[in-house]
Amino acid sequence: MDHGFQVLRTHPQPPPPALLDCLRACLDCALACSACADACLVEKDPASLVACIRLDAECAAVCAATAHTLLRSGGPHDRAALHAQLAACAAVCAACEAECRRHAGHHQHCAHCAEACRACREACEAAMKARH
Amino acid sequence: MDHGFQVLRTHPQPPPPALLDCLRACLDCALACSACADACLVEKDPASLVACIRLDAECAAVCAATAHTLLRSGGPHDRAALHAQLAACAAVCAACEAECRRHAGHHQHCAHCAEACRACREACEAAMKARH
Amino acid sequence: MDHGFQVLRTHPQPPPPALLDCLRACLDCALACSACADACLVEKDPASLVACIRLDAECAAVCAATAHTLLRSGGPHDRAALHAQLAACAAVCAACEAECRRHAGHHQHCAHCAEACRACREACEAAMKARH
Amino acid sequence: MDHGFQVLRTHPQPPPPALLDCLRACLDCALACSACADACLVEKDPASLVACIRLDAECAAVCAATAHTLLRSGGPHDRAALHAQLAACAAVCAACEAECRRHAGHHQHCAHCAEACRACREACEAAMKARH
Repeated sequence: MDHGFQVLRTHPQPPPPALLDCLRACLDCALACSACADACLVEKDPASLVACIRLDAECAAVCAATAHTLLRSGGPHDRAALHAQLAACAAVCAACEAECRRHAGHHQHCAHCAEACRACREACEAAMKARH
Repeated sequence: MDHGFQVLRTHPQPPPPALLDCLRACLDCALACSACADACLVEKDPASLVACIRLDAECAAVCAATAHTLLRSGGPHDRAALHAQLAACAAVCAACEAECRRHAGHHQHCAHCAEACRACREACEAAMKARH
Repeated sequence: MDHGFQVLRTHPQPPPPALLDCLRACLDCALACSACADACLVEKDPASLVACIRLDAECAAVCAATAHTLLRSGGPHDRAALHAQLAACAAVCAACEAECRRHAGHHQHCAHCAEACRACREACEAAMKARH
Repeated sequence: MDHGFQVLRTHPQPPPPALLDCLRACLDCALACSACADACLVEKDPASLVACIRLDAECAAVCAATAHTLLRSGGPHDRAALHAQLAACAAVCAACEAECRRHAGHHQHCAHCAEACRACREACEAAMKARH
């Protein structure tokens, strides 16, 4: 993601540092969840992973939207809308992490996805506390 | 969107009716905001519409993610994550509606977009109150 | 999608009519495929529907991107890029339609999704032939 | 994107290496283009950057869809649809790179975005030639 972050560093109104870390975590979690959903689907028993696949898909979509919101957080922005989206992202990451943890002993991709969700939830919580 | 809603009607665990109305409003608002962002951009003085274009882009992304969440709301689902996403969607729709209203006298597309945002905010608020 | 299309009708450089029909078909197909993927997943035997779920997810993403491209087709635009995206959308719709047809006898949602894919493929082919 | 790529490395049917490099380039380019669109918008004279902003938005959407397709390229997949999407991605990257180059002397973010587009176009071309 080198070029992408170089664009952000040369943006006339770049996201503040605390939100940039959160943006990075959201993008990582969106990829982890999209990839975990597909990985679960091609496991031998996808029927046992339905809840995980659905939460992965939901979490990926919410993380991607949160990233879009954070991208535009450098100039004047609506604080209420940003906070509400960070709260929503933290909530879906918490739910997806809990579900992925249940399968982490059997599927390495679920263990990695749970870590992505934990990191993203923590980044959203930190971003909500940061000044911006 | 006839085929899409026919798929939803034959889904084994379709979203409950109150959430289906909200899904429809989210999809409409996502299109309205994406189209309004592009319309504002090609107006004669895009510099006066920067805040509108940014909120349109943010609102479109959040509405699309909310639609993804609502699509999967028919079976067991995480109520906290769904409610938080509906709250985030209502918040960004309120912000985008307010900004679009400021330009509604000059640009018809902003007037229509403001209506899409209002309808989507109301649908999100109704969905938060509905049983599901 | 009433508000969304009203925004497009009042856009200073609206997509030409042939491309507007295609945009509508892409949005319908994106919803149909997203909903069909989730419907297949909660059927009794999702393991038999893995190829369908993956193609649905891929087709939904490509149709959504094609819609974004078509939205911006009213003013000066890159014809080569637009044609290539329409060709890609027609190709994935053809693949998804074929897979959904295999399950259409057992699952009504696959029958409706196959119809969405067929309509979208035809709309993309018509858009490639139209002047714009 | 560490967690995300760890999920992909532990996916039971991971994308082949040549396509994994392309996936990485698509994700980078999607971020670069989204961020460049927003950066251009808040520059002093956005009216001079309208074509750049529109192509950035289109390129970001197409790169994101291509990434979704590549994610699912590890198992059996439709080669025609994948190739067509890679071709579409290369085409929009070429168009966006050319437009960004025109502004690269004035705006560093356009220079970085042009590099992201070049890298992504090359990765798509390499992926089309690779066996998969």
